[in-house]
Amino acid sequence: MKSRWNWACALSTVAMLAVTGSSQSSETRGATFTKAGELMLPKGYRKWMFIGASITPNGLNSGSAPFPEFHSVYVELDNFRSYQKNGKFPEGTVMVKELSLVQPGKHPDGSLDSASGRGYFPGSLNGLDVMVKDSARFSKTNNWGFFTFGHHAQPYNATAKESSTTECASCHIANVAKTDMVWVRYYPLLSVQID
Amino acid sequence: MKSRWNWACALSTVAMLAVTGSSQSSETRGATFTKAGELMLPKGYRKWMFIGASITPNGLNSGSAPFPEFHSVYVELDNFRSYQKNGKFPEGTVMVKELSLVQPGKHPDGSLDSASGRGYFPGSLNGLDVMVKDSARFSKTNNWGFFTFGHHAQPYNATAKESSTTECASCHIANVAKTDMVWVRYYPLLSVQID
Repeated sequence: MKSRWNWACALSTVAMLAVTGSSQSSETRGATFTKAGELMLPKGYRKWMFIGASITPNGLNSGSAPFPEFHSVYVELDNFRSYQKNGKFPEGTVMVKELSLVQPGKHPDGSLDSASGRGYFPGSLNGLDVMVKDSARFSKTNNWGFFTFGHHAQPYNATAKESSTTECASCHIANVAKTDMVWVRYYPLLSVQID
Repeated sequence: MKSRWNWACALSTVAMLAVTGSSQSSETRGATFTKAGELMLPKGYRKWMFIGASITPNGLNSGSAPFPEFHSVYVELDNFRSYQKNGKFPEGTVMVKELSLVQPGKHPDGSLDSASGRGYFPGSLNGLDVMVKDSARFSKTNNWGFFTFGHHAQPYNATAKESSTTECASCHIANVAKTDMVWVRYYPLLSVQID
């Protein structure tokens, strides 16, 4: 009877894993490309590890900042841990940068007054950029490909073509090639040990 | 033999749950208080749902902002979803606000120049504040208790006494009592449907 209850247990275990997995069915792992080579919009990234949000508002950039929104950056936890261990991100790493408009303020620099002080506060979501590490696919741009799913409110585009080198990669290559193409200096959480 | 393999399966399932749980053993759920009534430092909160990071830098607040750091706010996913469904947070909700220093810039307002523009970028971690919803324990402050685990670099304090009403609660009561004591206007992600 040993084999019988092992088999039954195995079934039970498979069923249990299926149930556990089902709660994450709308999430994607890593990068998924269409047959035409476009990147599909990642899902579930707001449950990934948040590593920082910087802000370069229009009010401090002559009214036309390259990125006038808050940049909230997310990476999957295992890739985060791998970076901490090895100082570089593993093949297949996906980094998501979600943009949030700045809530309009009355000061010339665009800041607003709140009970906690004068400053900048996130508003509506306004776009999604993604970078994917794939040394075979993106060897010409230092192993990373760059994608924009629209700089606008949701819904974001379902797929995105690789951005041209001059749009994204060239600036990363010029400035942060030594830190695996990521602006790690602006994401100190990357060096924080987490539970 | 049926009872035997049921028993064996039960053991197997328990063992599996124990293993599944062990990967999260360093995380806490909800609020834990000491016998003396102090709140214990939450763990694992950086894997909770990030809902926004605002910034009120010293450079825009005459050199002495009440909160000169980035405020990164986290809440557990099920409490986030409950808020979306009911417009209020359930009993036992814990909200964590982690503070990050602003990287020093050369402009009078403290902003710095980067390749992506002039603005504010997070630096080292510098403190942790927590609010807990418990209508029995904190009935005098509109159902929420407020705690500070230190405004300094890690490690944060292991436990925290409830802050006095004037330190935190009074401002929340005066300004955001109608939105369950949370500054929801500054966390638009609370209204975004997530996967």
